Amino acid sequence: MKNKTEIKNVEIQNLILEISKLETDTVLVIVDHHVWSLYNKDFPFESITNKKILFWKAPDGEKVKNINDFQSAVEFFLDKGIHRNAHLVAIGGGATSDFAGFVAATILRGIEWSVIPTTLLSMVDASIGGKVAVNSKSGKNLIGAFHLPTNVWICPTFLETLNANEKLSGLGEVLKYSFLDYKIYDLVIRKVSMDEVVNACAKFKEKLTEEDLKEVGVRKILNLGHSFGHAIEFIYNIPHGEAVMWGISLIFKLFGTEKNINDVAALKKALDIPTTQAPWYNKEFPIDKIMHYLSKDKKISALSSIDLVFIKDIGNAEVETKTFDEIQTLLEEKKDELRKFTI
Amino acid sequence: MKNKTEIKNVEIQNLILEISKLETDTVLVIVDHHVWSLYNKDFPFESITNKKILFWKAPDGEKVKNINDFQSAVEFFLDKGIHRNAHLVAIGGGATSDFAGFVAATILRGIEWSVIPTTLLSMVDASIGGKVAVNSKSGKNLIGAFHLPTNVWICPTFLETLNANEKLSGLGEVLKYSFLDYKIYDLVIRKVSMDEVVNACAKFKEKLTEEDLKEVGVRKILNLGHSFGHAIEFIYNIPHGEAVMWGISLIFKLFGTEKNINDVAALKKALDIPTTQAPWYNKEFPIDKIMHYLSKDKKISALSSIDLVFIKDIGNAEVETKTFDEIQTLLEEKKDELRKFTI
Repeated sequence: MKNKTEIKNVEIQNLILEISKLETDTVLVIVDHHVWSLYNKDFPFESITNKKILFWKAPDGEKVKNINDFQSAVEFFLDKGIHRNAHLVAIGGGATSDFAGFVAATILRGIEWSVIPTTLLSMVDASIGGKVAVNSKSGKNLIGAFHLPTNVWICPTFLETLNANEKLSGLGEVLKYSFLDYKIYDLVIRKVSMDEVVNACAKFKEKLTEEDLKEVGVRKILNLGHSFGHAIEFIYNIPHGEAVMWGISLIFKLFGTEKNINDVAALKKALDIPTTQAPWYNKEFPIDKIMHYLSKDKKISALSSIDLVFIKDIGNAEVETKTFDEIQTLLEEKKDELRKFTI
Repeated sequence: MKNKTEIKNVEIQNLILEISKLETDTVLVIVDHHVWSLYNKDFPFESITNKKILFWKAPDGEKVKNINDFQSAVEFFLDKGIHRNAHLVAIGGGATSDFAGFVAATILRGIEWSVIPTTLLSMVDASIGGKVAVNSKSGKNLIGAFHLPTNVWICPTFLETLNANEKLSGLGEVLKYSFLDYKIYDLVIRKVSMDEVVNACAKFKEKLTEEDLKEVGVRKILNLGHSFGHAIEFIYNIPHGEAVMWGISLIFKLFGTEKNINDVAALKKALDIPTTQAPWYNKEFPIDKIMHYLSKDKKISALSSIDLVFIKDIGNAEVETKTFDEIQTLLEEKKDELRKFTI
C-alpha cells in the first residue's frame, strides 16, 4: 500500500491510458454494473495488449458491499492467477470503491489499487482516504480496513448521468466540507463551478488522511454528521449524503447554535438543495433505533459514550465525547420539535 | 495496531491475569474448541469482573480458516456490541491465531489483539509477525492482512498435550530457523531445552518482522521451504511444519548442495525427528499439481517467476528469482530420484 494518493483530473478519453501506464502486468478491474452499461465504450480494455486484464462486474451500488460478494470477487481473481504486484482498478461510486478497496486490502494480504470515482459523492469523499469496507448485519462499514489507493482519477464527465438523488447525496458531503474548511465554504457560497468545488473537497480530505490515516486525531472531524447519519441511512434506507445532511442538522439541533442552522440553510441555498422534510417528518422520531445504531458505530471507543464532531464556527471543528445517556435525554426532550424538522 | 509485539513467557496460572490487565473494557476471545476442552479450567474468565468478555469457540485447527466462519465470528461480535478499543485474544494453534488475527484486522477496520499460542508451531512461528489470513479455494492464506499482535504470551505447559504430528509440525519450523540463524542452529545441535529453542525462534522472527512487516525485504528469508511446502501441504493434506520440512528438502535437492542435505539430516537427528519417506514416496512426483500451486503462491510478483530462498551456509540465506519453466525442467529431470526421497 502507498502512504499517499495522487489525485488527478483526467478526461474520459484518457482514462484507459492511465490504466495502461500502471506498473504491473496484471490489472484487476471491479466495475459497477450500471456504470459499465453506460460507459463501456469509453474503456477499450482490448487496446491494452501488454497486461492481463481480469474483469469483475459488481451489482449496482450498496448491494455489493457484503461478505458473499466479497468472497465471489476474491475467489474469482485468485482462481484466474494473480500476484502481489497486480493492481486493482475500481470504477464506480462509493459503494464500488469501498468494496473494491476491501478486496485490494485483503487479497494476497494487500495489493495496490486505484479508483475512478463516477459519482459526486465518491469524487469528494468515498474514493479518498483509504477507508474500505463491506457492511455487516449490525451496520454499515463494520468489516474493513485502511488501504489508501495509489491514484484517484477524477473525471467530471460522469456527473452528467447522475440522477437527482445521487447528486443530492454528493452535495450532502460538500455541505459537510463547507463547515470544516473556510476555503470550501467560500467557494460554495460564491457559487464557483462544481469542478472547482470537487477538487477542493478531494484535496482537503486527502491532506487530512495523509496526516492521520487511522483516524486517531485530526481525521475525526470528517465524521461530522456521520454517526447520526449512518443510523438514519440504515433506518430510512436513504442515500448516504442525504443522511449525512440530516445527521449534521440533527447535531446542530441538539447541541449547536442558531447560527449553525442558518449556515446550513445558506449553504443549501448556494448548492441548490431544495428545502426538504426530515425522513421522520410528522412521525415519531425513532429514538430507540437511533440509539441502537449509535451504540454499534465504529467510532465509539467505550461502551457508554461516543465521540461527536461539533462546529464552533466555519472551519473550526471540535471533537467531544458525549455519553449515550446524555444524547438519549436530549432526543427525548426535543422529540416534538423533531417531528416538524425541515431545513 | 501496534508496530511491535511484546513476547513474554507466562505460566499457565498467570494467563488470566495478563488478560485482566489489558487496557480495555471489552475482550473478544477466540479459542480453539479442542484446546478449550482440555484447558478451560485454566481460564477462569468469570474472575474478570471489570470487563465484558465475548466468547467464540473455533472448530479444531485449519477447518476454521474459511470465509464462512470468518463471517460468523465477525457478525457474532458485532451483534454483541463492541468498539474500536476492544481487544481480541486468540487461544490456540496457528490456524486459530491466523483466523483470529484476520478478524482483529478487519472488524471495525482493525482492533488490537494478543495471542496465547498452544502449539509448538504457533509458538515459534504462526503467532509471531502479524501475518493473518483465511484460506481460499485457490490455496492457503490467500485472503488476509498484516496485523501485529500486541502481546504473545508463551506458556510451555501447552506442549505437554501435543500429539506426535503436532510436535513434528513445529519441529519442521525449528529446522527452518536453524538454517537461517547460526545461534538457533547451535542451540539445536547442542540439544538445549526446547523452551530455550522456542524462545530463540520467536525472538528471531519478531526481530525480522519488526524490521520488515510487509515482507518487502529481509523478512522474505522466513519463506524458506514455504512455496513448495504450501503446495505439498495442500496436495497431501499433511501438517504445515512437516510440509515445510519437505519443501526445504526439495529446494536443497533441486538447487542446493550435498552439505545442505547433510545439515538437514544432522538437524533432524538433533531434533529427534525420525527418518521419513516423502509423501510421494514410490509414487509419481506430482509436477503439474506442484506447478499449479506454485503459480498461485502469494510470494510471486510476476506471472512467470517466483522468489525462492536458498541457503549458502547456516545463517546465510539468499532470495533468488526462478522462472516457472526452470523449476519445471528441474523437476522433470529429477523425478525418478524424487520417487525414492527419504530424509
